[in-house]
Order: sequence, then C-alpha cells, then structure tokens
Amino acid sequence: MAEPLFRRLALIGIGHIGSSIARAVKLTPGAVAHLVICDASPTHLAQARELELGNSYTADPAEAVQGVDGVILCTPVGSFAAIAKGIGPHLAPGCILSDVGSTKQSVIRDVGPHVPEGVHFVPAHPMAGLEFSGPESGMADLFKGRWCLLTPPEGADEAATATIEGFWQALGARTVRMTAAHHDRVVAIVSHLPHLIAFTICGTADDLADETREEVLQFAAGGFRDFTRIAASDPVMWRDIFINNKDALLEMFARFSEDAQSMARAVRWGDTSYIEDKINRGRKIRKSLIDIKQA
Amino acid sequence: MAEPLFRRLALIGIGHIGSSIARAVKLTPGAVAHLVICDASPTHLAQARELELGNSYTADPAEAVQGVDGVILCTPVGSFAAIAKGIGPHLAPGCILSDVGSTKQSVIRDVGPHVPEGVHFVPAHPMAGLEFSGPESGMADLFKGRWCLLTPPEGADEAATATIEGFWQALGARTVRMTAAHHDRVVAIVSHLPHLIAFTICGTADDLADETREEVLQFAAGGFRDFTRIAASDPVMWRDIFINNKDALLEMFARFSEDAQSMARAVRWGDTSYIEDKINRGRKIRKSLIDIKQA
Repeated sequence: MAEPLFRRLALIGIGHIGSSIARAVKLTPGAVAHLVICDASPTHLAQARELELGNSYTADPAEAVQGVDGVILCTPVGSFAAIAKGIGPHLAPGCILSDVGSTKQSVIRDVGPHVPEGVHFVPAHPMAGLEFSGPESGMADLFKGRWCLLTPPEGADEAATATIEGFWQALGARTVRMTAAHHDRVVAIVSHLPHLIAFTICGTADDLADETREEVLQFAAGGFRDFTRIAASDPVMWRDIFINNKDALLEMFARFSEDAQSMARAVRWGDTSYIEDKINRGRKIRKSLIDIKQA
Repeated sequence: MAEPLFRRLALIGIGHIGSSIARAVKLTPGAVAHLVICDASPTHLAQARELELGNSYTADPAEAVQGVDGVILCTPVGSFAAIAKGIGPHLAPGCILSDVGSTKQSVIRDVGPHVPEGVHFVPAHPMAGLEFSGPESGMADLFKGRWCLLTPPEGADEAATATIEGFWQALGARTVRMTAAHHDRVVAIVSHLPHLIAFTICGTADDLADETREEVLQFAAGGFRDFTRIAASDPVMWRDIFINNKDALLEMFARFSEDAQSMARAVRWGDTSYIEDKINRGRKIRKSLIDIKQA
C-alpha cells in the first residue's frame, strides 16, 4: 500500500469545517493513517468521539500535535496566535502546519513567528461551509468541486505545498495558489462584505417598531430571506474574520458604501438611466457566473 | 355549475407574474371563464399565444378590457398611470380593477384618478416571483403558500375586495389586508432594500480591477452568489419599484446605512462585543423565520 499523505494528522478544532474534513478523510483511503481530533470544548470533543470522527481525541493542542506530520488549524482565526504559540515547541521537523482560516495575511502574521525551523507552514482556505456550526454539522462532501486557496509564504517548501494541495484535491476540492494579500482582497468582496451586509440588514430589521418587525418576519420575501440565511453564520468566527481582514474589508465596504449612496441619490432624484444601468450590471455579473457554472 | 369569480378577466402584461397567473387560472376551475391576455410586446403576445395561456389576445389595453368584469395590471408600476388613463373610459360599472404592483401608495396615486364611478379599485401585491422575466418564465404554482397583500383604499367595495381575496386564495395564496402606507414600509425592508443592496454590490464587484473581478466570478462563495441571484431581476420593474417607493425605501436605506457605518467603525476599532451582538441579532432573526416556517 502507498504511503498516506499524512501518517498522523491533527485537526485543531472540530466545528463545521473540522468535522467536514474528518468525515471526508474517513471516506478517502490513503489520505490520513491516524486522525487526532482536538477541541477545547468538552461538548464538541464528546460529540466527535460519539460520531467516531477520528482515531484519538484530546482537549490539549500540545498533546494533539505530538508525533504528527500534519496539523490543520480549524478554529476561528482570532485563536490562531495563542494556539500556534502553544503547539510551536511541540512540532517535529518536517511537519506541515496548515489551517482553514478565511483571512490569510493575519494568519501569516499570527502563526508565522511561532513556526520552528524545519516545520513547513502552508496556509490554506477551503471556500466552502454553510451557516451551521459544531461537529454534528459537518458534511463529507462539503469540499467537492469547491475551491481551496493556498497562500504559501515566499520561500515555502514546495513538497509541503504540494502535499497540502494533494490533500485538498483528495477531498474533492480544486486548488489554486495566490499571495495572501491578493487572497484577502478577493474574499473581502466575495464573502466578507456580503456577510457584513447581511448581518447589518437583519439588525436594521430587528430595530424596527414591533408591529413592522413582526410583519418583516411574516412576509420575508425572497430578498430578505436570502440575507437571513447568510446572517445565520457563527458569530465568533465572523467577528474574527472581520477584525482580521480589516483593511481589505473596510476598503471594499467604502467602495460599496459610495455606490449605495449614489444609488440612493439616483432613487431620490429619479435618475432612471443610472438605476437601470446599475441593475443591468448586476444581471451581467449573474450571467457571467452562470456561464462559468458557479451559480 | 357555480358562477366563476370572473366571467371575463383581462391580464394587462404577460411577463413572469402575469403568465404565472394565467397558468394558475387554467388549473383552477371556477376562477375565470374567459381570460384576455394583453401585452404591448408582439414577442410576448406571440409567446403567450403559443403557450395557450389565455382565450384571447390583444396588444391594445382598451380593447382588452371591453366587456370584462375584472382587470389585473401586471406591468411594471411605472406604466400604470398611462394604462389606467387609457383603459378607464372603457371599464364597465361593477368591474373590478386590481394589480400586482410591489408599491401600493404609488398605485393608488397613479391609478385612482382614472377609475370611473362604479368601478371597484382593489390594489393587491402577491409576494412571489423569482428573478426571471417573460411569458415563458411563469409557473402555475408560483403563488402557492405565498402571501398576497391587499390594500383596498378607504371606502373600497367590500364585495369586490372579497372577490380579489377569493381569487388569490383560489390560486393558493394567503391573503391579508393592510393600508398602502404600511405595506410600502414593510416591503421596503423585506424586499426593496435587499434588492437595492444586491444590485449595488454586484456593481461594486464589476468596478474592481480586471484581475480581481475575474477572481470574484471564479471564487464567488456563498455570500456573493446569493446576492447575484437577487440581482438578476428585471431592470425596468425594479427601477419602477425604487422610484415609486422612494420615501419608504430611502428611510430604510438611511437606517441600514447608519447601521452599516457603525459596523464598519466597530471593525476598524476592534469593538468585538459590538460586532458579536449584531451578528447574534442576525441569527435570532433567522431563527424566528425558521420557527414560523418562512425559511
């Protein structure tokens, strides 16, 4: 039998993404020989054990990474610095350290300094995940056909990068490499800004006078209902994403905000051609998405 | 056999909503004995004829309403004033004039003055419809389980209002009556503002530098993809809705805008508890929606 991609892999954090990786790994022969599951929450750890998501379980990250040749951080990005500091001294030379965080410059900033000589640090971001949380919400096919963006820092080990690519491809994802800075701009507009907007409009509705708010719920039409689905995502995870992709997110928000104010002005003054032009651009983007089969 | 709700009903406009009504009527015995289909577009009219959506066809609204006991305006709300002016003199006493427009104060303002003595004007708004356009996009079950909001003006004829209610209920919708002003506020937040935001963010993405824009399409994750679906809706219809619900839409936009700016400020200054609180309110709204089975 061929060597597995990882002889012993530790998942730090067994929430929606971590537990999806664990489920996918179980169905992917040759990916991981022994899967260590680590979570600070006793409830999550008990659920993971109950679901038989791994081969061994621990609440202690330093213990989890003993003797592993791979580690994937699957906790909210705000926790990465402390975890990396805690596990750094316990990582063996040749080990690959990766993650699934939605922000990549912050991960390199927070994790990089704690990576010992000889350990290979390959940040990755699987662009998948629904609005659910916890070990029970994982899905084995979550990554099938989805993109996983890799942002290996300058001078990263090529073999280690190829191993992480191979791992995600084995789980069904398509992979692409880019710089962390570029990654952060792209996800700011395709994911982080839409979430910020969705959270906000739900709050705006929640602030309405009682009578109107009840009817908002009663009559939630297509538009608002779609926003609430996005807004159902995990608060700590998204708080950490916003804070850790602040620069790119605020730049995209500023652009959006100017555009929204201009649209409001056109509505106020009845500038029909401006409004139609903007709507037509939305349709064009949708059509392009359908054309490249992303919709 | 019992009397039909309408002996002869004219649909003015045979787009997504009009053609869905026509399809639903065909499957609803006792609703309409003769359905007249009217559309200014020769292409739409030919498609409607091809699809056998009605019993007779004409491009002329004044001809369409000859001898009818019911008319439903299914064109973009911006066209209502001219159509009402054109058909008004041809409406027989006892006839019921209704519509499916998404704005109701503007409809009363634009149509009301052209309603002759003895004709019953009962504005309605079926809250259904997808992002598609044209006669071929109609669906017979589009209104099943959806709300239809009726905004009969003060002193409206009770029997006529009950007939329109009965019509929508026969097509599978649930009906509720409210004032036009209240209607316009509710739909501003549940539908019009989400659409304005979705159109805007697609335009913002379209304005990005070429390289980033292509990746926006390539990596469109959950959030952005959901927005593009909303943004694929008909430009003329939505232009008219925005202009004709200006006051309520701009008020809701101003509230949203303040909230979004506050969220951006919290991101800039790392106010984690503010961000978490807002995200949790989004989740709460989503949970309420699921609890009342709207999601």
